[in-house]
Amino acid sequence: MAHLITNCSFSTSAVQTFSSSPNYCRSVGQLQNSKCSNLSLKSCSRRQKKPYVTCASAAVQGQTQTPLTGSQQAYEHSSSKPKKVMVIGGDGYCGWATALHLSNKGYEVAIVDNLVRRLFDHQLGLDSLTPITSIQNRIRRWKSLTGKTIQLFIGDICDFEFLSEAFKSFEPDAAVHFGEQRSAPYSMIDRSRAVYTQHNNVIGTLNVLFAMKEYSEECHLVKLGTMGEYGTPNIDIEEGFITITHNGRTDTLPYPKQASSFYHLSKVHDSHNIAFTCKAWGIRATDLNQGVVYGVRTDETAMHEELSNRFDYDGVFGTALNRFCVQAAVGHPLTVYGKGGQTRGYLDIRDTVQCVELAIANPAKPGEFRVFNQFTEQFSVNELAKLVTAAGAKLGLEVQTKSVPNPRVEAEEHYYNAKHTKLIELGLVPHLLSDSLLDSLLNFAIQYKDRVDTAQIMPSVSWKKMGAKPRTVSV
Amino acid sequence: MAHLITNCSFSTSAVQTFSSSPNYCRSVGQLQNSKCSNLSLKSCSRRQKKPYVTCASAAVQGQTQTPLTGSQQAYEHSSSKPKKVMVIGGDGYCGWATALHLSNKGYEVAIVDNLVRRLFDHQLGLDSLTPITSIQNRIRRWKSLTGKTIQLFIGDICDFEFLSEAFKSFEPDAAVHFGEQRSAPYSMIDRSRAVYTQHNNVIGTLNVLFAMKEYSEECHLVKLGTMGEYGTPNIDIEEGFITITHNGRTDTLPYPKQASSFYHLSKVHDSHNIAFTCKAWGIRATDLNQGVVYGVRTDETAMHEELSNRFDYDGVFGTALNRFCVQAAVGHPLTVYGKGGQTRGYLDIRDTVQCVELAIANPAKPGEFRVFNQFTEQFSVNELAKLVTAAGAKLGLEVQTKSVPNPRVEAEEHYYNAKHTKLIELGLVPHLLSDSLLDSLLNFAIQYKDRVDTAQIMPSVSWKKMGAKPRTVSV
Repeated sequence: MAHLITNCSFSTSAVQTFSSSPNYCRSVGQLQNSKCSNLSLKSCSRRQKKPYVTCASAAVQGQTQTPLTGSQQAYEHSSSKPKKVMVIGGDGYCGWATALHLSNKGYEVAIVDNLVRRLFDHQLGLDSLTPITSIQNRIRRWKSLTGKTIQLFIGDICDFEFLSEAFKSFEPDAAVHFGEQRSAPYSMIDRSRAVYTQHNNVIGTLNVLFAMKEYSEECHLVKLGTMGEYGTPNIDIEEGFITITHNGRTDTLPYPKQASSFYHLSKVHDSHNIAFTCKAWGIRATDLNQGVVYGVRTDETAMHEELSNRFDYDGVFGTALNRFCVQAAVGHPLTVYGKGGQTRGYLDIRDTVQCVELAIANPAKPGEFRVFNQFTEQFSVNELAKLVTAAGAKLGLEVQTKSVPNPRVEAEEHYYNAKHTKLIELGLVPHLLSDSLLDSLLNFAIQYKDRVDTAQIMPSVSWKKMGAKPRTVSV
Repeated sequence: MAHLITNCSFSTSAVQTFSSSPNYCRSVGQLQNSKCSNLSLKSCSRRQKKPYVTCASAAVQGQTQTPLTGSQQAYEHSSSKPKKVMVIGGDGYCGWATALHLSNKGYEVAIVDNLVRRLFDHQLGLDSLTPITSIQNRIRRWKSLTGKTIQLFIGDICDFEFLSEAFKSFEPDAAVHFGEQRSAPYSMIDRSRAVYTQHNNVIGTLNVLFAMKEYSEECHLVKLGTMGEYGTPNIDIEEGFITITHNGRTDTLPYPKQASSFYHLSKVHDSHNIAFTCKAWGIRATDLNQGVVYGVRTDETAMHEELSNRFDYDGVFGTALNRFCVQAAVGHPLTVYGKGGQTRGYLDIRDTVQCVELAIANPAKPGEFRVFNQFTEQFSVNELAKLVTAAGAKLGLEVQTKSVPNPRVEAEEHYYNAKHTKLIELGLVPHLLSDSLLDSLLNFAIQYKDRVDTAQIMPSVSWKKMGAKPRTVSV
């Protein structure tokens, strides 16, 4: 299980900005305006809707507990047991940052991962821009720095025997599911990768649903989906559902899906499967349709180089903003695919971890299938290129842009207006893409530019030309 | 690969009614009002939209060719090569009837099947009401009766090496894909059957799409979907797509899907995957969202007992109308699940084979993803029970009805109005459910009532109670 966000990139000023804020918990559910980084929320009994606030037993060393105030009164003290969160795919880009964030916030965290994302790099001849250490070293370093233990279950969630043991052993209150093959280009390399992606993602998620039903009936599934499930319709994109009046009758139905890769399709399949189990079995689930993530550092990953997050800039796992920053750093023209009017939702990785915690702290009700669009701003590829060009100029970099044939099948000029208010209503305080963040992103790319393999930057996977035969050498 | 129609039953008067009609080809594309049962349609070149009419080299013995008239003028004579149709899942209920029908009509037919539907019966302790012989005997008997050869490829389409060889060897002009696990209750027995169903159906279909792209770019995919993909929305159900006006803007989007079993969900996944490949690769595809099929005999299966089709009446593979007729025949009360207001679309198996041929004769354009709702009438379960009760009374059977707890999770009273005009526009002349057909269905059940295992009639699979653990004994 690798992490599953389709489009991820990096930042560096993130840490300074965020860790200097006195408002450490401001976006955790209703727990705004407090410094209590060691809070966790725990339902006091099965099927009870009102969460209880408790202070984690494994508080961050050197931090003191702050009394609850204001909207925190909505929660009650009742238990000293921290809420247990299983982070499936916790060794990946979003998963690792989330696992540390939740651990830091006082949740009891277990990572479930088969580490296959690291294997993909070996097989394709790719590497993270940032050096990353083993998951075992990461967890040991986290323990030594904070005193907090993160449990580790190494195995494949497609293996139900393994997954069952993990559920029975850890007994999670919430399962955050990043454990999927998360690259659209990877899913379009060849038939075997397309089949792998759909099998791995769909069956893995089915197994998680069955494990919840069998062993953790009250567990809240927080599933990472993608904004790519919606495609680019010519009407506003709503959050999961749309009310349709047709021939004089009205119903609220799942928003129509138009995914554009075998990866994105796997997420559509997951969403349908999860919605059904909520209805049939009373599963409680939140589907986070995430946009393109940028930023590599969070408060926690910045604590030590062994906690460093991965940063993908290659044509398979990297995305526009990553590639642009690396291209600018090494003096390569920014490569815009096609016309560059492709518009998507974007968010800072610090908001990814914030959003996941908000979903956990405010769980779906039993039987509820809840969909949040998880992004903070919309940009077109051309807009990103302009932003990077301007930020590069400030650093003395002469940044060129060129259009290359689009390897994907997608509209290059289209209407795009996607709603994203539900997480804001829960308390999300976004980190918007700023000049200073872009400066630091570029500086980050410059810092590591000696590690860049420029041969990996250009697109190597074609949506139209993909074939049935295995591509056995590096793409 | 077993046949994939979710709800199937039987008829017997079918053959007499249909074979006595002088209008033998009346529903084949625009080829109405002729007796030419040995016509086939063949595109004269790749990517050409206009189909050509040709008379098959393997004409039915004893039948003479009739000149083309009327709307047939739309087609041109150009080739003596019959159109090649690969029937995946051709040993199953709908697949077998379709393979024979197409062979009889002059198409060159190959059956691809791994015969796993027969294994399911062994494993679950079930059996067809009608005795059926081996696929090898079936094909030999067909050859001896008609002189027509049906090629047979025994293997699993999830094995791409096998499927590739079948495609390269047969070079189909159209692939009719019935080769899926087609029972909703089977998919809800336990985790392993749920996973099997989604893996088998989704990966099998992906492989078919890749085989088409790699080996038969012009091949037309005729994929059996299900009306169950739509669920029971409170608005009219359209054929695949719906035009939505929202916040002042309008787009035509895939109709929202709300499937209610892991089987039905697998069909939703297939539909999304196929639609994507049409857009990305130019695949031509027709998705036939079929209703509940009734009737066991067609012109061809009635020719000889060794050509007999299967008839499922059990709680896993049988459906309401089947079960009711068998229950009436053996003096068991008709078992209505819950309130009985569940309304669905139904069609005669003679219309299934007609619809598939219409789709083949009028292929989708390259890149077109076309959806037809394939049923002819709507009935509620209560309406079916009343019809069977009345038909039973005419035969001197005293038929009782009782409500049993609904094993499924579904609305038992709901709005239902599904469009089904596209196949009519192509020339479908429906066989509507009639008193005489119901009489013959009941007589058919009475004829075979000594073969009925009454222990298999009641529902044995619960949507809510299904578990992760394997059910190793008979359900």
